[in-house]
Amino acid sequence: MCHIRKRLELEGVQAGKVVKAQGRLLVEGGGGVRGAEIIANVFGAASAMPALRIDADVASITRTVVDMAAEVMEPETTFALAARRIGSQPYTSKELKVVVGNAVLKALSGKGIRVDLTNPDTTIYIEARGQTAYVYHRVVRGVAGLPFGSQGKVVSLFSGGIDSPVAAWLMMRRGCAVRLLFFDQRPFVGEDYYARALTVARRLRQYVPLDTYSLHVVSTGEIMREIVEKAPSKLICLCCKRMMYRIGCMWAEKIGADGLVTGESLGQVASQTLVNLRILDEAAALPVYRPLIGWEKLESVGWAEKIGTYELSAPAVHGCTALPRKPSAQARLGDVKSAEETFNVQKLASEAVRGIRQIPL
Amino acid sequence: MCHIRKRLELEGVQAGKVVKAQGRLLVEGGGGVRGAEIIANVFGAASAMPALRIDADVASITRTVVDMAAEVMEPETTFALAARRIGSQPYTSKELKVVVGNAVLKALSGKGIRVDLTNPDTTIYIEARGQTAYVYHRVVRGVAGLPFGSQGKVVSLFSGGIDSPVAAWLMMRRGCAVRLLFFDQRPFVGEDYYARALTVARRLRQYVPLDTYSLHVVSTGEIMREIVEKAPSKLICLCCKRMMYRIGCMWAEKIGADGLVTGESLGQVASQTLVNLRILDEAAALPVYRPLIGWEKLESVGWAEKIGTYELSAPAVHGCTALPRKPSAQARLGDVKSAEETFNVQKLASEAVRGIRQIPL
Repeated sequence: MCHIRKRLELEGVQAGKVVKAQGRLLVEGGGGVRGAEIIANVFGAASAMPALRIDADVASITRTVVDMAAEVMEPETTFALAARRIGSQPYTSKELKVVVGNAVLKALSGKGIRVDLTNPDTTIYIEARGQTAYVYHRVVRGVAGLPFGSQGKVVSLFSGGIDSPVAAWLMMRRGCAVRLLFFDQRPFVGEDYYARALTVARRLRQYVPLDTYSLHVVSTGEIMREIVEKAPSKLICLCCKRMMYRIGCMWAEKIGADGLVTGESLGQVASQTLVNLRILDEAAALPVYRPLIGWEKLESVGWAEKIGTYELSAPAVHGCTALPRKPSAQARLGDVKSAEETFNVQKLASEAVRGIRQIPL
Repeated sequence: MCHIRKRLELEGVQAGKVVKAQGRLLVEGGGGVRGAEIIANVFGAASAMPALRIDADVASITRTVVDMAAEVMEPETTFALAARRIGSQPYTSKELKVVVGNAVLKALSGKGIRVDLTNPDTTIYIEARGQTAYVYHRVVRGVAGLPFGSQGKVVSLFSGGIDSPVAAWLMMRRGCAVRLLFFDQRPFVGEDYYARALTVARRLRQYVPLDTYSLHVVSTGEIMREIVEKAPSKLICLCCKRMMYRIGCMWAEKIGADGLVTGESLGQVASQTLVNLRILDEAAALPVYRPLIGWEKLESVGWAEKIGTYELSAPAVHGCTALPRKPSAQARLGDVKSAEETFNVQKLASEAVRGIRQIPL
């Protein structure tokens, strides 16, 4: 409930009380169509309908439905009425539909309007609740899911590419308060890498019903330099990613999060093999959630489009220059651990966590 | 390639050689439409087309396309031709389309057939490859993904309900040789529980390009009895699931698998909270893959329908009678570990693994 108010407020839509009614949340002055679209994107919302609130007497309902039909229906199209009653009214739903339906037909008789109960072009919905009725014709499908944060907290290893925002969003939808952690690997990546992450994070922020929400940035340029200098070239990526896992888990413990979420998908790149993921997991002190693990790339792209991150994530950026020509696809844990012995893993990780800075979104 | 032959063979379709050609695999005598449907369900296949193989001269192609059009096109409908050439032929694709298209129009002039290049009812495809041409009008969309087993092996904690088969299938699609491990908890579940698992496993087996494939069954009735007797009632589910994770991991190590796959989805049932999943993970010596972790129930149902397991998984069965009235949703690891100290976890798990039996599917 307060998530709806908060999201409307953050989008600059003035709304009044949010009242819990049987099977619905009623948002006073909900901001019309734009408000409904915002509400539909609040996790937990199955759908949102911008409705007119009127008195529940037959005359008021008839007038409102006729006006709505006149406004929204094209000539030579079909309509149906859906009526639902809660509480007591001096009519049945069926009686109401007959009276109102006939009034619409009569009022729009010049427009070639017909009734079609099975596949109407327009459906006008009437919900009578006690002395009040709600009339609407537009149903905006909601994101569904569970209220933001209701399941606890996880840390997203967030790059701003196509996959990590989708993974973060999916966990948000299942009720996680997702904290975005971005690894600033400059000078091994370009400035545009960071800029992209920020832009994508701002888009995700539009799903978050909180007053403040941030991109958390951890500088790992120095760590990268150590790894590149000391680790065998083919193990650079694994060493780097294991540091990310460690830093993510350390920070998660610090902020009370119960897991990591990553955009990894099995076999999508050479390093995302079962063998390598097992080596990565070994460095994680918390569960690692990978909602895209079983997906095809096109499915991730489809979701990125749906949640509005795709076009922000897709532009090419100057990616990691430390990427070796042949990263190991079937590394051995022992080799990775030996490589890690050449630099002080724990110290580097905890220093990095201490230096995490917060960019308000 | 051999997966295609194997799957056709398992379905009783005689096929000849499978030849790798530029951008295609050509399956001789591929079994027509049924064969194409089988091939489309082989992991790695983007699409499958039952085609006629003919000589690549204009006369043969024209005759074949005209016959095909006469057979498949309804009166008063539209068509387009798509032509593609590999190697050298004495015509361009464009010339071919003009000649063949005109022949179709002429031959079917009584049928009211028209050309529509943007949105045709029927498209007939011509692929000339050297001296041979392939003609087809039906494209069966494939499951895509990566060849079965190409990424390694994982163990599915397989119940036969709606979720675990979808999770197993998704990992198969990403190239995992998924081994199905079923926990036979009788007498705490009904006989129908086992029967359902077997039926669903048989359906999944239809995606597996192997001569032999099994449901692996581990009896955990005795372990359940210990847990029910000794653990606090609200921790029964966590203790039980942790035993499953342990048994799954032990068996995985034994058979060279690199992880578990489960159907868990965050917040779907009271026990699948972040806190509880973290407690479960603590008992796993290998990565636990949860492809459905970020999904809504309806999405899992949609996939189950798509892969053909839904109607087999959906029937109600006699589920676990040990399920307490109030399973803990926010348990503490310490409490679970204390509970586990009352029975010999390692011994019970390794005995169970030793007793795993194999039901050929």
